[in-house]
Amino acid sequence: MRTQNPVFIPGPTNMPDRLRHAMDTQTVDHRAPDFARRFLPLLEDLKTVFGTQLGEVLLFPATGTGGWETAVTNTLSPGDEVLAARHGMFSQRWIDLCRRQGLYVHAVEGQWGEGVPVDEYARILAADSDHRIKAVLACHNETATGVTSDIAAVRAALDKADHPALLFVDGVSSIASMDFRMDEWGVDVAVTGSQKGFMLGAGLAILAFSPRAIAACRDARCPRAYFDVEAMREANRAGSFPYTPPVGLINGLAESVSLLLDEGLPRVFSRHHRIAEGVRRAVDAWGLSLCARRPALYSDTVTAIRVPRGFDSNALVHHAYEHYGVSFGAGLGEVAGKVFRIGHLGDMTDVMALSGLATAEMAMVNLGYPVELGSGVAAAQRYYSATRNRWKREVA
Amino acid sequence: MRTQNPVFIPGPTNMPDRLRHAMDTQTVDHRAPDFARRFLPLLEDLKTVFGTQLGEVLLFPATGTGGWETAVTNTLSPGDEVLAARHGMFSQRWIDLCRRQGLYVHAVEGQWGEGVPVDEYARILAADSDHRIKAVLACHNETATGVTSDIAAVRAALDKADHPALLFVDGVSSIASMDFRMDEWGVDVAVTGSQKGFMLGAGLAILAFSPRAIAACRDARCPRAYFDVEAMREANRAGSFPYTPPVGLINGLAESVSLLLDEGLPRVFSRHHRIAEGVRRAVDAWGLSLCARRPALYSDTVTAIRVPRGFDSNALVHHAYEHYGVSFGAGLGEVAGKVFRIGHLGDMTDVMALSGLATAEMAMVNLGYPVELGSGVAAAQRYYSATRNRWKREVA
Amino acid sequence: MRTQNPVFIPGPTNMPDRLRHAMDTQTVDHRAPDFARRFLPLLEDLKTVFGTQLGEVLLFPATGTGGWETAVTNTLSPGDEVLAARHGMFSQRWIDLCRRQGLYVHAVEGQWGEGVPVDEYARILAADSDHRIKAVLACHNETATGVTSDIAAVRAALDKADHPALLFVDGVSSIASMDFRMDEWGVDVAVTGSQKGFMLGAGLAILAFSPRAIAACRDARCPRAYFDVEAMREANRAGSFPYTPPVGLINGLAESVSLLLDEGLPRVFSRHHRIAEGVRRAVDAWGLSLCARRPALYSDTVTAIRVPRGFDSNALVHHAYEHYGVSFGAGLGEVAGKVFRIGHLGDMTDVMALSGLATAEMAMVNLGYPVELGSGVAAAQRYYSATRNRWKREVA
Amino acid sequence: MRTQNPVFIPGPTNMPDRLRHAMDTQTVDHRAPDFARRFLPLLEDLKTVFGTQLGEVLLFPATGTGGWETAVTNTLSPGDEVLAARHGMFSQRWIDLCRRQGLYVHAVEGQWGEGVPVDEYARILAADSDHRIKAVLACHNETATGVTSDIAAVRAALDKADHPALLFVDGVSSIASMDFRMDEWGVDVAVTGSQKGFMLGAGLAILAFSPRAIAACRDARCPRAYFDVEAMREANRAGSFPYTPPVGLINGLAESVSLLLDEGLPRVFSRHHRIAEGVRRAVDAWGLSLCARRPALYSDTVTAIRVPRGFDSNALVHHAYEHYGVSFGAGLGEVAGKVFRIGHLGDMTDVMALSGLATAEMAMVNLGYPVELGSGVAAAQRYYSATRNRWKREVA
Repeated sequence: MRTQNPVFIPGPTNMPDRLRHAMDTQTVDHRAPDFARRFLPLLEDLKTVFGTQLGEVLLFPATGTGGWETAVTNTLSPGDEVLAARHGMFSQRWIDLCRRQGLYVHAVEGQWGEGVPVDEYARILAADSDHRIKAVLACHNETATGVTSDIAAVRAALDKADHPALLFVDGVSSIASMDFRMDEWGVDVAVTGSQKGFMLGAGLAILAFSPRAIAACRDARCPRAYFDVEAMREANRAGSFPYTPPVGLINGLAESVSLLLDEGLPRVFSRHHRIAEGVRRAVDAWGLSLCARRPALYSDTVTAIRVPRGFDSNALVHHAYEHYGVSFGAGLGEVAGKVFRIGHLGDMTDVMALSGLATAEMAMVNLGYPVELGSGVAAAQRYYSATRNRWKREVA
Repeated sequence: MRTQNPVFIPGPTNMPDRLRHAMDTQTVDHRAPDFARRFLPLLEDLKTVFGTQLGEVLLFPATGTGGWETAVTNTLSPGDEVLAARHGMFSQRWIDLCRRQGLYVHAVEGQWGEGVPVDEYARILAADSDHRIKAVLACHNETATGVTSDIAAVRAALDKADHPALLFVDGVSSIASMDFRMDEWGVDVAVTGSQKGFMLGAGLAILAFSPRAIAACRDARCPRAYFDVEAMREANRAGSFPYTPPVGLINGLAESVSLLLDEGLPRVFSRHHRIAEGVRRAVDAWGLSLCARRPALYSDTVTAIRVPRGFDSNALVHHAYEHYGVSFGAGLGEVAGKVFRIGHLGDMTDVMALSGLATAEMAMVNLGYPVELGSGVAAAQRYYSATRNRWKREVA
Repeated sequence: MRTQNPVFIPGPTNMPDRLRHAMDTQTVDHRAPDFARRFLPLLEDLKTVFGTQLGEVLLFPATGTGGWETAVTNTLSPGDEVLAARHGMFSQRWIDLCRRQGLYVHAVEGQWGEGVPVDEYARILAADSDHRIKAVLACHNETATGVTSDIAAVRAALDKADHPALLFVDGVSSIASMDFRMDEWGVDVAVTGSQKGFMLGAGLAILAFSPRAIAACRDARCPRAYFDVEAMREANRAGSFPYTPPVGLINGLAESVSLLLDEGLPRVFSRHHRIAEGVRRAVDAWGLSLCARRPALYSDTVTAIRVPRGFDSNALVHHAYEHYGVSFGAGLGEVAGKVFRIGHLGDMTDVMALSGLATAEMAMVNLGYPVELGSGVAAAQRYYSATRNRWKREVA
Repeated sequence: MRTQNPVFIPGPTNMPDRLRHAMDTQTVDHRAPDFARRFLPLLEDLKTVFGTQLGEVLLFPATGTGGWETAVTNTLSPGDEVLAARHGMFSQRWIDLCRRQGLYVHAVEGQWGEGVPVDEYARILAADSDHRIKAVLACHNETATGVTSDIAAVRAALDKADHPALLFVDGVSSIASMDFRMDEWGVDVAVTGSQKGFMLGAGLAILAFSPRAIAACRDARCPRAYFDVEAMREANRAGSFPYTPPVGLINGLAESVSLLLDEGLPRVFSRHHRIAEGVRRAVDAWGLSLCARRPALYSDTVTAIRVPRGFDSNALVHHAYEHYGVSFGAGLGEVAGKVFRIGHLGDMTDVMALSGLATAEMAMVNLGYPVELGSGVAAAQRYYSATRNRWKREVA
């Protein structure tokens, strides 16, 4: 492909050259001492990104879905009960994955556009006096709906019920882009991937396990081999992997963590918030509404936008790709055809975001949407120019 | 790392620039039509490399170990019996993996340095008149011992016993480097990875399933989610993946298959044989012997060399790395300390091989081995210069 | 630098990955036969881009300025008279370069914002009945002012006066982006560089010499060594260079010419026109005017925009860089502080152009310009969306 | 090209990945402040590599030949006399270049295989009591013959004659690989290029001018424009270039200087000496002799080897390329057909050197040379293994 238009999908995200170069390594011996010298400090540095001092970080050559499987199969046994909610494509997939492993899922039917139904969770947990529920699942950021949930509230519900269930959090599209506090929120397993906030290609599931989750591995009887945490931890202790690691991605991840920590996580998070807020101003100027139902739920990494009644969001996404060479996210599952998504996480600037907004406007106008060219762009420009910073302080 | 010394580990292998460039792609939308236009023909082209017209090729973002798990969990059910042999590190790991999935393994104790014990297999299969054995496992090329087994003979044993068990073959270090005939040998699942003969980074498990193996997925009850073949096939039919694919590796694989088919598989195989034969001549000149016990077993992708009594092969590998910046393979498992391995698959030339042999000689002499400097190199040179070809015809 | 914002300077231009990869070549032997096999066809293919069948193409490891020096020193002798016009920074530099070589320059004072003063040229040539003027210099596209001149008219003036002077044309920012017809216009030396329409890094001066220009080398007495055309032609005939060629750039150039010819030059030119026209619509919507005085002069590769009285265009360029990480061209020479420039040649899309326009608007508004946010963007969107094409037909 | 065989030409040299990545930069604005912030410190750091505190470093987008032209045209005037010796291809070319600029060259006929004829220089300088000779030219390392000359002795000859001529030194294949002491040796202009010891692609002439050479620019009347030192210095003072700089190469050069200074120049020089000495041991074992006539002249960057009477070294070079994909340097000029050259500068390891020696042996034996396979390799191995170092201390 020849064009240099950015992508506006909510992952994989645009890759900075510095990370592309870090990934583009000639073959080195993954059993040689140099590999361990690079890999072991990376596991430590990643803890900061997860907001944990107590937990342990694990990398598996897989996608986020493999990360979920790792979480579930290493800590639970067939027949175990888990509590989950279906309020988007990814929370739904996680439920399916649990069932495939022989777990019993209390699946709360949520609204697509709402967050984790904390009140319902609280009710169920309080009622579960036998503690048959062994794990509670929560999606921190539903990539399909652009909804961020309140994980601290889920923890509070557990604490209030004095419930010992493990807390599993899907942070695939939040960790490294939004504030994540594993220890403070009492998260037991947090899952993310290399291709979102870390700005790399897909291929690494990145997990953090709390001491309780580690302890749970001992008795968990779900079968596992490739995703076995104990085998991975044992190999990691020797600076190696139980099989051939993807050295390029691991180099890239080390460089990515360097970039993030050099910038400072609070600045990374506020940068994402600023870009996202500009996008939301544009949506408002277009007269459209978000899939996320309340400001408290708005995601700073992906914005899902409802198209007006009578329009097909898939056609919009298709049009933007075919005519302008720009990729947006389509609507998935229940909101297929009803929303399109602008991903704005990773190495995104205000300037890049404006090109995405301008493209969305052209595509909407081409397809007869009641939207005025330049309207959303101007709203975003107003916000971005008022909150401008010396860009290099922000992203260098 | 600044040196450009090649690696002589049996994977990951040295990567040609053309493949590095193919992998180094800026982010593209994996749900856009262009991805499907590149991905679907790749699945077809890969069939030629597996030697199959009847089978289907599947790619999972994982390593070869993930490929094994895919083979086993999609076709078998807990309690099923499988026949396997332990005659090297990788065959041993596969047995462990089966047991973790709740299978009962008839584990034949083989010799490290011997191939698949075909006669013993034949005896067991003939005796299994109830057909309780559902699958037979065979390692085409034991990377730990440098032994290539006769898969056609395993098939013959099955046929002779008129046994319906599925035949699973580990071709991780053979496929794309050595002749592999899936259809002719009646292989039901063949497994390989991206980082050996395909000359890419680790991160893709590459499998071919026969129609019988595909059919077996229906009734197989081992739990699976990430590695579920049916979900993958369904997504593939639409040109997509059930989760985010590693686009860079897939681009690289497409370019790699192009390289291999342009050169012509028979030339690829004879190129590997020629490099390997030169290495064996050197070993002979050193007065050392191979781990592989008979010429019929000699592998054309990796040579495992026994060190003289009283020497520690791990120290040799360590010395070569520390003093010359060259990586060889260490001995694994039963032959740890007893053999070192020279990997010579992928993008290896006679000239590169000579630098590995020269380095091994220096390291051996430094450590007091009764080996003469230049002796192995000269033997290999004699063979290489006599069989020289215009290199470009060979590898351009 | 971490941001992926495009640059909007009129060269070097944004580089497509395909060209970056072509330039990123491990060292090869420039005296080996393979180099000649790649290099000689490139010289032929470049003729098409220059619009010549009669001429010869020459590459020197230098910038466009080195190309000018090559043109002048190989065809002229100290004391020779040349006709030139000063109507921009680059035409002015060329005059200086001629004087340094001991030539006598008839320097017509033009207007910055006007093209080559053809009438004045015609008058002078008609009056030069002794034919003391040996060469006529014309800048096809003045990068400093965004003015394209009518080279066919210069040729007509020469023909009308029946004047034998050579015609030298600076096509640095036009060739490969705009229509250029060396043979039809009777151009004797055309000069360009690698870092504009060819989308590569700087480092190659690319010239075409007509048969008359080649013949003139015989008697030209300006001293030359590095830039000697005869030595270069002789080496080229053997497929080599008189000194070490920049192999990476030459590989990149071969790939670039492939890209351009695959797209088709007419499509390349119309693509540049479309992008440029959108930018001009934006300028008009801002209520600003171009440096170029009439539509016939408007350049399709760079737009120079006059800032309102009382504003300093350098501050604008600086602000856009410091606050948004976006580079525009500053005003040079006579128009320093008075114009800023948007480069839109090479690998530029409508989507990228919109991000530049949006940034310029924000910077202008931040600095108090009487410009409305979104106004220029909307005007460009209107044009781009009305003239949209399936982008892949255009640029794939 | 698919093979990863190293090149053994004396430049361009093998490029480490770290430098390839530094060169592979997306376009940045060379007029933006960031460029100056990277470029100006580089000019300072380069002084250390030239061994000068008094001098100034200048970079021109050209090859070493352009560097020579810069030296001559900026400091001398037509008719000026210079003293030079012809004892190799590159010293001969420099003489030709001076003559093209209208200088009168006292060309001492040296021996190809000998160094600068210091005694003859001393005699001529002593006799030149009028000081008509304005500059003395000396080639520090004749790349064509593998001869290193004694520049300190040339300085001593000038001093003894109390002669004010400028001293120009061609350090193209020595600087950054061998000890060079500009200030101590009283060198006035030193010239090198990016593609030798700096391990980059060709395209940058790198010069250092002493204060006397800078002063000489004022009165020098050789015409110059592209290579004008005053214009370059003026632009450099503002952190910029008089024309578009090759930003990628400049980034690469900054990274290269970092690598060299991090390793430490003394270690860089001793590393080159060690590699060279191993190559010389091999040549001795082959029973062949060097073009360089005495050990004091042996170059540590390139070894030119005389082939036995009756053999054609060009055929040898051709054979190695065609059959083994390995490039050696051919004989040039007077020694064409008589010598072949092994370049061993830049990013060369002992292991890589051994593969070159092994290839040369095979090619010689294929062509009937009276050389024994493995003989030279063994001699080099003996030296390398005895002087082995922890490679990472050496080159990491």
